Amino acid sequence: MKYLHTMVRVSDLDASLNFYCTQLGLRELKRSENERGRFTLVFLAAPGDEGACVELTYNWDPETYTGGRNFGHLAYQVDDLYALCSRLQAAGVTINRPPRDGHMAFVRSPDGISIELLQKGGPLPPREPWKSLPNIGTW
Amino acid sequence: MKYLHTMVRVSDLDASLNFYCTQLGLRELKRSENERGRFTLVFLAAPGDEGACVELTYNWDPETYTGGRNFGHLAYQVDDLYALCSRLQAAGVTINRPPRDGHMAFVRSPDGISIELLQKGGPLPPREPWKSLPNIGTW
Repeated sequence: MKYLHTMVRVSDLDASLNFYCTQLGLRELKRSENERGRFTLVFLAAPGDEGACVELTYNWDPETYTGGRNFGHLAYQVDDLYALCSRLQAAGVTINRPPRDGHMAFVRSPDGISIELLQKGGPLPPREPWKSLPNIGTW
Repeated sequence: MKYLHTMVRVSDLDASLNFYCTQLGLRELKRSENERGRFTLVFLAAPGDEGACVELTYNWDPETYTGGRNFGHLAYQVDDLYALCSRLQAAGVTINRPPRDGHMAFVRSPDGISIELLQKGGPLPPREPWKSLPNIGTW
């Protein structure tokens, strides 16, 4: 038995690829378009960790996706939490839970999927501006 | 960067462990209880695939968890899709999307998390009773 992927639905494929790939750092592995079902599937994974994917389902007929409480978040270990949060912030992504402790941050995808980012190898030394930043919203 | 886990909230820890471990076949790797936060975290993974977890969050204060459309499902590759579906069905789990094609099935966790089960190595030959079973509900 093997974990393959977590599927999330996305309302704007370009905005989601910008978030998950350009900003977050995942890479597109595979894409398939289904004319009859009117949907596109895109599989993403962290570089070097291609066994565990996120599957983006983009239904061509517009729908606004909201969340429920049974799903919590996707979690990734990252090499440099501060550098990643700076990049995300510069790209306009809200850092809902800033990495005040050098250990953990939370952001949300364009469709409200909560993403936990955890520093590889244990917490970095707490550092401004992160140390003083308040939480924004929920995650 | 590395995928760590998908977190889901569970309203009944015993029922969820029965579903994810006893029925589905995941194993508990780690458990922590937080008295102050009044929650328990349990990390599960498929045997031999411990790098990719499901994190169950059990909040001690009761809450009913429902789903949203932005999260789709968790997907696992399994060794014998028919055997697993038989075991799940015998345990009272609804097979929402029976493996009519020998390739794919969908079930739901006690809190409505959709789980996709995919046959390892490609589809098995279609076989009764699965071949004739209708869908039940949504997944």
